[in-house]
Amino acid sequence: MKKIILTGDRPTGKLHIGHYVGSLKRRVELQNSGEFDEIFIMIADAQALTDNADNPEKVRQNIIEVALDYLSCGLDPAKSTLFIQSQIPELTELSFYYMNLVTVARLQRNPTVKSEIAMRNFEASIPVGFFTYPISQAADITAFKATTVPVGEDQEPMIEQTREIVRKFNSVYGDALVEPEILLPDNQACLRLPGTDGKAKMSKSLGNCIYLSDTEADVKKKVMSMYTDPNHIQVSDPGQIEGNTVFTYLDAFCKADAFEKYLPDYKNLDELKDHYKRGGLGDVKVKKFLNSVLQEELTPIRARRKEYEANIPFVYQILKEGSEKAERVAADTLAGVKRAMKINYFDDMELIAAQAEKYKNQES
Amino acid sequence: MKKIILTGDRPTGKLHIGHYVGSLKRRVELQNSGEFDEIFIMIADAQALTDNADNPEKVRQNIIEVALDYLSCGLDPAKSTLFIQSQIPELTELSFYYMNLVTVARLQRNPTVKSEIAMRNFEASIPVGFFTYPISQAADITAFKATTVPVGEDQEPMIEQTREIVRKFNSVYGDALVEPEILLPDNQACLRLPGTDGKAKMSKSLGNCIYLSDTEADVKKKVMSMYTDPNHIQVSDPGQIEGNTVFTYLDAFCKADAFEKYLPDYKNLDELKDHYKRGGLGDVKVKKFLNSVLQEELTPIRARRKEYEANIPFVYQILKEGSEKAERVAADTLAGVKRAMKINYFDDMELIAAQAEKYKNQES
Repeated sequence: MKKIILTGDRPTGKLHIGHYVGSLKRRVELQNSGEFDEIFIMIADAQALTDNADNPEKVRQNIIEVALDYLSCGLDPAKSTLFIQSQIPELTELSFYYMNLVTVARLQRNPTVKSEIAMRNFEASIPVGFFTYPISQAADITAFKATTVPVGEDQEPMIEQTREIVRKFNSVYGDALVEPEILLPDNQACLRLPGTDGKAKMSKSLGNCIYLSDTEADVKKKVMSMYTDPNHIQVSDPGQIEGNTVFTYLDAFCKADAFEKYLPDYKNLDELKDHYKRGGLGDVKVKKFLNSVLQEELTPIRARRKEYEANIPFVYQILKEGSEKAERVAADTLAGVKRAMKINYFDDMELIAAQAEKYKNQES
Repeated sequence: MKKIILTGDRPTGKLHIGHYVGSLKRRVELQNSGEFDEIFIMIADAQALTDNADNPEKVRQNIIEVALDYLSCGLDPAKSTLFIQSQIPELTELSFYYMNLVTVARLQRNPTVKSEIAMRNFEASIPVGFFTYPISQAADITAFKATTVPVGEDQEPMIEQTREIVRKFNSVYGDALVEPEILLPDNQACLRLPGTDGKAKMSKSLGNCIYLSDTEADVKKKVMSMYTDPNHIQVSDPGQIEGNTVFTYLDAFCKADAFEKYLPDYKNLDELKDHYKRGGLGDVKVKKFLNSVLQEELTPIRARRKEYEANIPFVYQILKEGSEKAERVAADTLAGVKRAMKINYFDDMELIAAQAEKYKNQES
């Protein structure tokens, strides 16, 4: 069986380095590993509209941002199919039929949906499209016969919902769908990068994100004003590593050769942490080091972004071609689904012949 | 503005004379009235699957039955577009986007859905597709820009849901959809014909239906064993009209000239009822009269059915051509919806140019 990846993002804003360490970097590695036969990367505009129906312009404007972020991180249209969800109408048709295989009670029990509803303060006014998006996600995954979905642990209930739908469909109508496996991040530390202010999550509204598209100066400014240990006031004070954003970022980004290049006084991160803990190491020095580490990672991304930014119609062309390819694959799956459900009546010569025969026999 | 009708039935069984007096007969009259520019009659197989997902074969086998019933009642493919819902994928795409405009709480309040859920003993295990079918129905109605939906009073909340979606869509995205009006039956007595056993509803499982496809002998047998007034034992007993199925059927079917033709002892239905009420009129006599009345109505229907039954592939051809026409109309509406939502990115030269410009300006 082919190994196929499906993953993606909602285009509700530019991507930040939290997305990068949490998923984008891994995606590029998986793409370049040669282990997968097909990789589909979806810009989930239709899913974004489920809780942004009143603000379609936000979604519309951010598709290009996400595409630029993808391409600049190294997702390569020659290896990965980049596409826009709304351009694949087959996905809505699959969703429609899968909705018959899931109960309302089952959706209500989905812990991911529960916490996302709480996060958005929806309470009684949850849009139906948002409430049912696990089913739509099952359509996205199964349309491409994805075997592998690289997502965070918090998405596990969503993948389980997809697996349930696949099993139910195959048992009622006959095998037409593939059960996907979740592929969890291998580096637990990278799962979720905190905001630059130390808050648990990067969020556009809190202004605590470092974006992939930030300029060198922006990144430096954000790093230099980053949250550290609030009790580490004098250089001589002993400092704390846990909850210290600068060190969390270093955990996520620092490579083995970084000390030799930017801070040769230390052999490795452990030595640096030890010094900080016992006192005598100032925040500014650590921040400057983090800035060097981050700039090294972000400079080539920024450079590639500039190239693509200078040719926006070309980026749309990439998305268009990717969407056309994705649609061909989804249409093929949908045709199989309809054959299994036997709702392809006009092509079903057996059905027509059997019914004609039935009436002939009644007559005689 | 064009006057357009959308209506239809779930193909879960052959249609009976309850469907005929409740909707079919009216539909044919509306079709032949010349007052409507377009008439779309939908065989709602996809909607039938929302509560028959485990039994797709039932739906599949009954499409032809409903089509035969339609054609034999006088629905004319030259005047009305007969089509199969599942063959119009645009409907699922419209449903998908409308789902963002309706809250879960709003669906839960829908009285038609509430009572249908109770009727099916779904309770906690309502399929999501069934729960959301008012939204799918809004897609069906708006896809054809229907102005007029001829349905029973019990469907009023469904049409109101459609109207809400239309208003919400047009206010968020700009005018693209048409608000439909409900067209209630003009003859309240005909709204719902009871079963031949006197139970409130005709139901296949109760075996109390007279089908449009029943033979002459079947109809006679069912009429002669019909429920009347249980206290009307001797011919001389005074009888009751209310709740007396034979008289309810006569109210629905008896035409002015029927007495002259079949029962010249009476001038009209009132005289017959009076005699029954005061006593001296036996059930058998009234039933024989009803049988004549029904046979007169059903004989031409039965004859047309035989003709179409002898040519099943032709009936499928009618449905195929109707579905192709319906799809063209729905595709046109969907294109308008996507333009309004501005999710037709690849055709949106303005968007691409504006974003290219934005990055050019950032650069300089």
